Amino acid sequence: MTDFAAIEDERLARMVLSLVVEPGDWRYLKLVRDLGGVGLLQALHRDPERHELFESVALRLKALDVDAELHRVERTGQRFITPLDDEWPHQLDDLAGQWDQRTDRGDVPIGLWVRGPRRLDVLAESVAVVGSRSSTTYGDEIASDIAAELGHAGVPVVSGAAAGIDYAAHRGAVSARAVTVAVLAGGADRAYPVANTRMIEHLAAEHLVISEAPPGGSHTRVRFLVRNRLIAALTRGTVIVEAAVRSGALSTMNWAARLNRMVMAVPGPVTMASSVGTHQAIRNGVASLVTSGKDVLELVGEVGEHLVDEPRGPERPRDRLTPTQSRVLDGVPVAEGATATSIAYSAGVRVGSAQRALAQLAEAGLVEQRASGWHLTDAALE
Amino acid sequence: MTDFAAIEDERLARMVLSLVVEPGDWRYLKLVRDLGGVGLLQALHRDPERHELFESVALRLKALDVDAELHRVERTGQRFITPLDDEWPHQLDDLAGQWDQRTDRGDVPIGLWVRGPRRLDVLAESVAVVGSRSSTTYGDEIASDIAAELGHAGVPVVSGAAAGIDYAAHRGAVSARAVTVAVLAGGADRAYPVANTRMIEHLAAEHLVISEAPPGGSHTRVRFLVRNRLIAALTRGTVIVEAAVRSGALSTMNWAARLNRMVMAVPGPVTMASSVGTHQAIRNGVASLVTSGKDVLELVGEVGEHLVDEPRGPERPRDRLTPTQSRVLDGVPVAEGATATSIAYSAGVRVGSAQRALAQLAEAGLVEQRASGWHLTDAALE
Repeated sequence: MTDFAAIEDERLARMVLSLVVEPGDWRYLKLVRDLGGVGLLQALHRDPERHELFESVALRLKALDVDAELHRVERTGQRFITPLDDEWPHQLDDLAGQWDQRTDRGDVPIGLWVRGPRRLDVLAESVAVVGSRSSTTYGDEIASDIAAELGHAGVPVVSGAAAGIDYAAHRGAVSARAVTVAVLAGGADRAYPVANTRMIEHLAAEHLVISEAPPGGSHTRVRFLVRNRLIAALTRGTVIVEAAVRSGALSTMNWAARLNRMVMAVPGPVTMASSVGTHQAIRNGVASLVTSGKDVLELVGEVGEHLVDEPRGPERPRDRLTPTQSRVLDGVPVAEGATATSIAYSAGVRVGSAQRALAQLAEAGLVEQRASGWHLTDAALE
Repeated sequence: MTDFAAIEDERLARMVLSLVVEPGDWRYLKLVRDLGGVGLLQALHRDPERHELFESVALRLKALDVDAELHRVERTGQRFITPLDDEWPHQLDDLAGQWDQRTDRGDVPIGLWVRGPRRLDVLAESVAVVGSRSSTTYGDEIASDIAAELGHAGVPVVSGAAAGIDYAAHRGAVSARAVTVAVLAGGADRAYPVANTRMIEHLAAEHLVISEAPPGGSHTRVRFLVRNRLIAALTRGTVIVEAAVRSGALSTMNWAARLNRMVMAVPGPVTMASSVGTHQAIRNGVASLVTSGKDVLELVGEVGEHLVDEPRGPERPRDRLTPTQSRVLDGVPVAEGATATSIAYSAGVRVGSAQRALAQLAEAGLVEQRASGWHLTDAALE
């Protein structure tokens, strides 16, 4: 049996701890932040009964064949990245001292288990696109489009590899040949849901698959919630595409809000349960309404970096009019003819000006003179 | 020819002025507020060339056969309501000094031409439901549903009798046997659009049809915009159901915002042009997102009068669990079995507590013990 108290390498110490500490168990995570991994291992060895807290982990450590276990995780081909590594995504440090009362989980992970050829620091500019597992065709399309638009702008897309919106988001990013990263609740080598195995393996081969749980770690409900804090913390903002009232995506949203990340939600038909959660979030002011990747880029980008053109609609003939022409045009009745005098009066301009403007408007094809007076043309009614 | 300067009755003076002053021409409307109708008529008579402004109206008055004209409007069966009348909707007084730079129109109307058996003061608690003329089936249904919900709560529904959303709103209110009021841009006796004649005549017979324009007055584009200020001002809030980028409904919205009325917008599929305007309004913070009549009632109601129950979703078996049971349940892997010890560890509770909780959860049908350990049941995965 390996003497874990003899470990002097901080990275190794954290790796060992990550094998026995439950993801997001903030009491240990805080101790690692305070004492370091080496320090915590020594404290656990020196005085395993000093604190009720130490007991269960000390027992687990005692039962652990460290060498065999390290050998096993090495065989899975995963690397373990800690805050000591260059590529550590320091935005995760915002989790320090943050934990969720309901699950009693939170804080900065001890380290992350990683599969895939990309460096974790590509996530600095990333955006999360998440949502309901029971998504609609509408939601899937929007998620995929938004992810593709983000991808085209060079923004990595983070999601949870779940069915529904998550899957559509990864797929959209892949279609844009953009970096896309799956954060799993269980071990990064354990594709979940099984139906998404092929996609997850593709991400592991070309992009990144990340987990706080060690290789082989199982997927539990609490770990999904704990994982959601990582998705929120790793990214500059979270986009919720569809979410029913109690969707797990809302836990990601709450973490994003708490960490001062941008929280965005896509609206949908009010008749569909799949959008109740996003509408509620927009209505309550938790999330900003977004309708496209462009909207998202504007909100998460540096000021002015991705300015959205406000939708203006197609240009119409009336856009090119002078103020007087426009007023005169507005003074022509929509359903019958009128004299220049009556139009001048409606428009609040002098009769001479109205007559000149009507001649110009007729030339532009917006009005025509008939026996019954001046009429709007079809072009003017557009 | 009648001597209009001899008129001493303020209501009659205003009626005469309304026959010659263009709706919403704030320069005259302000003069009427300052001098009164009688005062303005006298000033126009005394010194018609004192001010450039007086000229055109003085000319019109001169050409007007007041008696014949009053006889004509009387025959249309419309009554003319002014601030001197009991039933005057005093919320319109908020328009004093308010005018729109683009159309150069605004301020408090001199009076309103009214058809229908209801009193104008029923509008004190009313809500406007307006939107695109080229609405979708989705928009029509929502508009009609919201109007019906408002109607059931005793809230009169105001709209513009246009095609599309306006029509659906009136229809929804009628179906709820609620008061519904059309505000027209041209004369209240000139149904526009013609396709809605039957509905407008029904409102005139059972409810109210209102216009600032005198009987027979034609519908011009500027009058639609001027009319929109009345819809905004008459109501406690305006709901925009669908609006493309340049929908006229957005002018109603801008007037409502300016008058500190509640501005509300219904979201829709982001893929449809018909919701671009409403999404933009929500995104820019001009409008609050609403999804139902209940939402609207909450926003326009007195505090607490129409409190909306936040959607909570159906109750699930896990809602009745104790905190420990819930944590233990969250610690059971979703895709495989686990021992009580491992679950206790995942859940962060002692092994004894986990065992007790697992037994209780098994009784509730949420977990089951198999050869491979404790598993979640289908009920737990709901």
